[in-house]
Amino acid sequence: MTFRIEKDTMGEVQVPADKYWAAQTERSRNNFKIGPAASMPHEIIEAFGYLKKAAAYANTDLGVLPVEKRDLIAQACDEILAHKLDDQFPLVIWQTGSGTQSNMNLNEVIANRAHVLNGGKLGEKSIIHPNDDVNKSQSSNDTYPTAMHIAAYKKVVEATIPAIERLQKTLAAKSEEFKDVVKIGRTHLMDATPLTLGQEFSGYAAQLHFGLIAIKNTLPHLRQLALGGTAVGTGLNTPKGYDVKVAEYIAQFIGLPFITAENKFEALATHDAIVETHGALKQVAMSLFKIANDIRLLASGPRSGIGEILIPENEPGSSIMPGKVNPTQCEAMTMVAAQVLGNDTTISFAGSQGHFELNVFKPVMAANFLQSAQLIADVCISFDEHCASGIKPNTPRIKHLLESSLMLVTALNTHIGYENAAKIAKTAHKNGTTLREEAINLGLVSAEDFDKWVRPEDMVGSLK
Amino acid sequence: MTFRIEKDTMGEVQVPADKYWAAQTERSRNNFKIGPAASMPHEIIEAFGYLKKAAAYANTDLGVLPVEKRDLIAQACDEILAHKLDDQFPLVIWQTGSGTQSNMNLNEVIANRAHVLNGGKLGEKSIIHPNDDVNKSQSSNDTYPTAMHIAAYKKVVEATIPAIERLQKTLAAKSEEFKDVVKIGRTHLMDATPLTLGQEFSGYAAQLHFGLIAIKNTLPHLRQLALGGTAVGTGLNTPKGYDVKVAEYIAQFIGLPFITAENKFEALATHDAIVETHGALKQVAMSLFKIANDIRLLASGPRSGIGEILIPENEPGSSIMPGKVNPTQCEAMTMVAAQVLGNDTTISFAGSQGHFELNVFKPVMAANFLQSAQLIADVCISFDEHCASGIKPNTPRIKHLLESSLMLVTALNTHIGYENAAKIAKTAHKNGTTLREEAINLGLVSAEDFDKWVRPEDMVGSLK
Amino acid sequence: MTFRIEKDTMGEVQVPADKYWAAQTERSRNNFKIGPAASMPHEIIEAFGYLKKAAAYANTDLGVLPVEKRDLIAQACDEILAHKLDDQFPLVIWQTGSGTQSNMNLNEVIANRAHVLNGGKLGEKSIIHPNDDVNKSQSSNDTYPTAMHIAAYKKVVEATIPAIERLQKTLAAKSEEFKDVVKIGRTHLMDATPLTLGQEFSGYAAQLHFGLIAIKNTLPHLRQLALGGTAVGTGLNTPKGYDVKVAEYIAQFIGLPFITAENKFEALATHDAIVETHGALKQVAMSLFKIANDIRLLASGPRSGIGEILIPENEPGSSIMPGKVNPTQCEAMTMVAAQVLGNDTTISFAGSQGHFELNVFKPVMAANFLQSAQLIADVCISFDEHCASGIKPNTPRIKHLLESSLMLVTALNTHIGYENAAKIAKTAHKNGTTLREEAINLGLVSAEDFDKWVRPEDMVGSLK
Amino acid sequence: MTFRIEKDTMGEVQVPADKYWAAQTERSRNNFKIGPAASMPHEIIEAFGYLKKAAAYANTDLGVLPVEKRDLIAQACDEILAHKLDDQFPLVIWQTGSGTQSNMNLNEVIANRAHVLNGGKLGEKSIIHPNDDVNKSQSSNDTYPTAMHIAAYKKVVEATIPAIERLQKTLAAKSEEFKDVVKIGRTHLMDATPLTLGQEFSGYAAQLHFGLIAIKNTLPHLRQLALGGTAVGTGLNTPKGYDVKVAEYIAQFIGLPFITAENKFEALATHDAIVETHGALKQVAMSLFKIANDIRLLASGPRSGIGEILIPENEPGSSIMPGKVNPTQCEAMTMVAAQVLGNDTTISFAGSQGHFELNVFKPVMAANFLQSAQLIADVCISFDEHCASGIKPNTPRIKHLLESSLMLVTALNTHIGYENAAKIAKTAHKNGTTLREEAINLGLVSAEDFDKWVRPEDMVGSLK
Repeated sequence: MTFRIEKDTMGEVQVPADKYWAAQTERSRNNFKIGPAASMPHEIIEAFGYLKKAAAYANTDLGVLPVEKRDLIAQACDEILAHKLDDQFPLVIWQTGSGTQSNMNLNEVIANRAHVLNGGKLGEKSIIHPNDDVNKSQSSNDTYPTAMHIAAYKKVVEATIPAIERLQKTLAAKSEEFKDVVKIGRTHLMDATPLTLGQEFSGYAAQLHFGLIAIKNTLPHLRQLALGGTAVGTGLNTPKGYDVKVAEYIAQFIGLPFITAENKFEALATHDAIVETHGALKQVAMSLFKIANDIRLLASGPRSGIGEILIPENEPGSSIMPGKVNPTQCEAMTMVAAQVLGNDTTISFAGSQGHFELNVFKPVMAANFLQSAQLIADVCISFDEHCASGIKPNTPRIKHLLESSLMLVTALNTHIGYENAAKIAKTAHKNGTTLREEAINLGLVSAEDFDKWVRPEDMVGSLK
Repeated sequence: MTFRIEKDTMGEVQVPADKYWAAQTERSRNNFKIGPAASMPHEIIEAFGYLKKAAAYANTDLGVLPVEKRDLIAQACDEILAHKLDDQFPLVIWQTGSGTQSNMNLNEVIANRAHVLNGGKLGEKSIIHPNDDVNKSQSSNDTYPTAMHIAAYKKVVEATIPAIERLQKTLAAKSEEFKDVVKIGRTHLMDATPLTLGQEFSGYAAQLHFGLIAIKNTLPHLRQLALGGTAVGTGLNTPKGYDVKVAEYIAQFIGLPFITAENKFEALATHDAIVETHGALKQVAMSLFKIANDIRLLASGPRSGIGEILIPENEPGSSIMPGKVNPTQCEAMTMVAAQVLGNDTTISFAGSQGHFELNVFKPVMAANFLQSAQLIADVCISFDEHCASGIKPNTPRIKHLLESSLMLVTALNTHIGYENAAKIAKTAHKNGTTLREEAINLGLVSAEDFDKWVRPEDMVGSLK
Repeated sequence: MTFRIEKDTMGEVQVPADKYWAAQTERSRNNFKIGPAASMPHEIIEAFGYLKKAAAYANTDLGVLPVEKRDLIAQACDEILAHKLDDQFPLVIWQTGSGTQSNMNLNEVIANRAHVLNGGKLGEKSIIHPNDDVNKSQSSNDTYPTAMHIAAYKKVVEATIPAIERLQKTLAAKSEEFKDVVKIGRTHLMDATPLTLGQEFSGYAAQLHFGLIAIKNTLPHLRQLALGGTAVGTGLNTPKGYDVKVAEYIAQFIGLPFITAENKFEALATHDAIVETHGALKQVAMSLFKIANDIRLLASGPRSGIGEILIPENEPGSSIMPGKVNPTQCEAMTMVAAQVLGNDTTISFAGSQGHFELNVFKPVMAANFLQSAQLIADVCISFDEHCASGIKPNTPRIKHLLESSLMLVTALNTHIGYENAAKIAKTAHKNGTTLREEAINLGLVSAEDFDKWVRPEDMVGSLK
Repeated sequence: MTFRIEKDTMGEVQVPADKYWAAQTERSRNNFKIGPAASMPHEIIEAFGYLKKAAAYANTDLGVLPVEKRDLIAQACDEILAHKLDDQFPLVIWQTGSGTQSNMNLNEVIANRAHVLNGGKLGEKSIIHPNDDVNKSQSSNDTYPTAMHIAAYKKVVEATIPAIERLQKTLAAKSEEFKDVVKIGRTHLMDATPLTLGQEFSGYAAQLHFGLIAIKNTLPHLRQLALGGTAVGTGLNTPKGYDVKVAEYIAQFIGLPFITAENKFEALATHDAIVETHGALKQVAMSLFKIANDIRLLASGPRSGIGEILIPENEPGSSIMPGKVNPTQCEAMTMVAAQVLGNDTTISFAGSQGHFELNVFKPVMAANFLQSAQLIADVCISFDEHCASGIKPNTPRIKHLLESSLMLVTALNTHIGYENAAKIAKTAHKNGTTLREEAINLGLVSAEDFDKWVRPEDMVGSLK
């Protein structure tokens, strides 16, 4: 490999000759060999692409950056957004906790690329300075959290929410489809009074309905951008009106309603908005766990489980047991849920650990957030496509289990009282007989009344 | 101790002669000797007091309970609410996960107390039946989660939110009070550009401002009550219109805007609303950690720390070091934050583990929620009273640290560029000199320009 | 209430006239109204009783405390250990994070009680000084962590380990008892190849076997005591040899093998030993969750679940569904597991937050640890007594499910290959027929071979 | 792209023509588009390489696999271990929770590669069958957990432990190096009695010393391998003696002391060994947080912080503040700690969720474990190299802070009592004077005694 010399305020550094990055990126590459290379999420890089361009525009509008520099910077940013420079961002999550080195990675690549776009050569002094031009009116301390919010908000509204909505719709449609399938209910995993399979699925749909509201409630905080706060939140070295204007440009370039943060000190020193939105993602993950777990229990069998529903058979289930089919989508979903719960611990802990004017757990918070948001999105779509949309009731099994249930006795409470009803159920349980037999034997209900009072289809109708 | 015999559907049980509870409560007492006695939160008992009374009223309105029984039940409930029966609820958190035994504890105590209020004696067959009358149109499966929401909502709106608001106001007032105190900023715990102490405190106030919004956003879900769903969510054995009416009575008796749950299946089988609101409480706890931690760092010393603020001296700090004073309120607050983070793990995990029509982690979720909500409330008030409201700037120290800072050099960036500015700072750092000396020595800035450009008070004003 | 005046280095304080505590306890009572009163765990108070007595003995042996003072102090400590002074410790967990105020509570109560034992009166200047005598050669910073280790170690070896061992033995005995009960296995909740019920239970017994080893592995760290480190770990103001001697006295008084800590700085500034042992408790809690969850799934039904085992019927399961019986002990156990997981988050987080010479999350760590250790102990005993020891196989059900299973086909793999075996299983599944029928129909196995090869009882024996 | 047709028991699938994988891998690729492609950890793939080879050898030894097949399989496995087939493993973590599809990915690639090594062509029927030969005497249910233990054990003993030991040695060496640097101690972040910088670092070294013991304590469980249990733990379809023999081959091929699991049911249905070892990793992570956090606090400044130590200046710290240097290695380390705490939540939760004979959270547990083990290893080395080994005391600053401290007064306790000592400290604090001045002014100590009694260097020596 050939190298060129780049320097920063600390001195000279050898950099791979064909890369646009410069001294500070290279220092970070060498000083932080922690985990896989280039692990800084690409969504963060992309968000920087937008914000560096927006900053250039705002700077020019406010008279502190010449139009020519703005256009060169913007051109380099557009190449980042077009994924033409994907191999220029080698840094990792586990660097400085402010993300300074990734901000400098962007500054250096943009400055050098702009210089080349302008006809220059790598290794020459760039006409665009990484700090004085690309980073003008900025600090790592306000750019990196801005990139976090851009990337997080974008992921949530473009991937996570639509995916949850898609699954929510499928579950709601299944609820409608199954609205006449009367089945046994189960509480404590024990037989209980009946409900419809549609009602059971309405609970799942409702969980995601509430989860979506919870996520959306957090967006007004998440859309606020730190940019304009610079080093400590005071906006030092920014022109008047810059913070509002740069947020407008970001909103315009991305097409999402970003605004400048109400309080820049909060926006640098804390990432409560990330904690807040991830809290809602975690809630949804816990809901998804419940839904997926119920579905695999309902589908258990085929002969020695509950077996009330049939789920799509997508792949051979066992390398040793021929013919086995497993609830694999449920398993992927519950694994994602476990991951998201852990990510929430990481994010919350990290969120509490800011000191004074800066929280220096930014990259770990960003990476965990983006992973959760993406995994929930992907698993909802996968589960929807390969499992939920193909669920069918196993009608004969449902009917068989319903009819043998002892908990239909509950319908007798209002006629003969809880204690007499209990006597019937316990006797039938002991004798392995039916409720009807024992109700008559015990002289507590006539056959006629029993048939009139104990009708599963009448036991499910009081509420939707 | 003397006993009387009570029985339930399983047979006879000896019960302390002077207690109102009956067979099922006593079974639970004996079967669940786990942790301290009577650990079921008293807020849950109280919530049951409201809901049992409301159920009686709704039942009477709908024609399924005689007025006389309603009034006797209501009278017993009023005694519970007046704390006259506090020694009648001996059960623990670690019982059945549906809280059935606590529901029966209430049913039994109310039935027996009503019987006595009616002139009867304990041990006689009560004119009020615990299941058929007190529990009419109810199940543990809908009453316990209703009690959870009542207790949680009430605690949050009556204790937690007001306490956070009180501390938020104090911090905002301090922000205003300190608005002219220019001090050094710190990022990465290292000296950075200046800001005002007021700006620093504005970040704390903003954190709680956003946290309050986050909590309030969750209330529309939390105020929904499961009651009317009975055993599995279908509302079996309830009269038409009961769910709406009973929620109205609860709202009326408590004076808070409770409504019936949109989906009763979700409300029994999940406690996503508890997960949701606790997620917001956890966010606030993480904010409080940051605030309290900053304050103890700012107050550290008195001679060998940062020492920029003075906090009230409330008690001797050491049993061995004479004259020591410690940031004890900060310590209580950060301990509470750690507790709430753990409680969030418990609640989230538990929330994911419902099966079919019922989540059976109700008591552990309720207990952890109520602990978090109460601790946050109490610690905010304690911290406000004994620490925040008494914070004062240590002006000489602040001035001294500000003046010696090298990061004031940042103001020169826009005049002489980042690299030249860095040269000045590094030289002063190396030589132990001032920026001004080295700026002039290096010939980069004139004395006159230096004094015009490097003015801390001008470096804090770009943003509010 | 009447009061007397007590004073400390900050001045005078009114204290309830009949209480032994003095100024600093009273200050703490007033300054930390957070959560329920007197929440500092009684095990910590008791541990202090031992250590204060041991310190007095060591001090006397080393010539810095007169015998008379030692004996008065010891007498007061013995009263604490005999629970005669239980109402003298009103402080809460949420105080200073060093537990200084609880150390002073002990110092004050012991000093005043000793004075009274000596014939003095409350309110007089005590002949025993709380700091100079009771606290001699000590600091809160080494006493409180010593009390934590004493209380934690004692609880673990006297309550938690024996209770787990008891349940482990029951599960191992059940494993032996069920060793000939061949049943269907389940993987992914789906039917799989057979095993014995004894083998299934051997897995549970093995989990607890490994969990016990894990807990015991942590004890050599936990038995190390900070005492002798005093304020910052250097042992300032202690006589030579004190640390070893005081640990010997503690070991002798309690009858457990406590030793002085290898490194006092680690022992004050961190509570890694608490994190370590609780990590093992958490592992056991996760094991208990798996065991209890399996047992409730195996016992599910009685008619519409899996129903392979019968668990004791301890109480009526439902306030609305007559005759219902639920796996309530399993529910208590899984709730405890969820609590312990959350406690582990709290403890780990808190454990990471020491600063310099002191970790100030001591009370919250102690309280969470002791809660976990006690709850695991109690729930293991409760579960053992009310559930595990009464488990019986539901033999007809087990036999029925075993015989209908399609996964017995796996026995044919080594004879006809995986693909042919899969064809048989899939055809039987599609047609609702038996493996034997389809094996013969498809011409892949003769009836004779089938009966020889597919014998569930031969499929369980390769390993113990 | 060109394709060939492969089939499994479910039918035909199009597979990229140039890939060795077959139908089941391709199904999984299509059915689980969740998160980044090929995310299954490479350490798991490598572990499978060892175990598939070992299984072939054991099978041949026991007479159930011809030598020729063994050698072809072994040759393909060796290519995997030599990283020649790295592009053949496209599957993700978020697949079936048993890892069945990754087991089949290995089976298919090995079978097809063996066929090609034998002179065959892709697309022909392979002479080696993926299930009947490569997977002989195996199931996903025992191979995947075996791969987990191999990968986890190998990572911990080859990467994590050596890295922690390296850092531990550096910290111990620094402790020795700094043994005469007397400095002020700090408790509650407040000035306390002195200790040496060496003593402070001895606490850090002790933390890692205990952490290493904790990790090593878990290895006897982790080295146990599930292989031989096959589908449900009974060892169905394995030849006699296979489980012991295959573990011996694995131990021999890798050079690490693996043995067969004591209980195969525990080894399939739970991953308590993973929970156990990760619990110890989490403990170390919490220790590392404390150490890194202390170091950045000690290094804070350079002028307005504590500034008692100097850490290496590795890179420019700010994109806006010229000359700033930050504790970036500390930040990477504390971020890793936060990640590991979250991973522990994920792993513990997942570990509790096994059902019956199988835990189906295997890939998520493996991935989180390996990430934690690698990150701790990498960050310890990075921190050691770029921070710890270069730490130097800032002697003038240390001396200055020590001399101004008021807590030296503690040395007077044993001479004049706690209360008089407190009076001196408080007066000096109020007046901004020295202890010596006030001790004499107050007439409590003569100048001579003061100088004899209050000597910081005498206050640090009672313990090592």
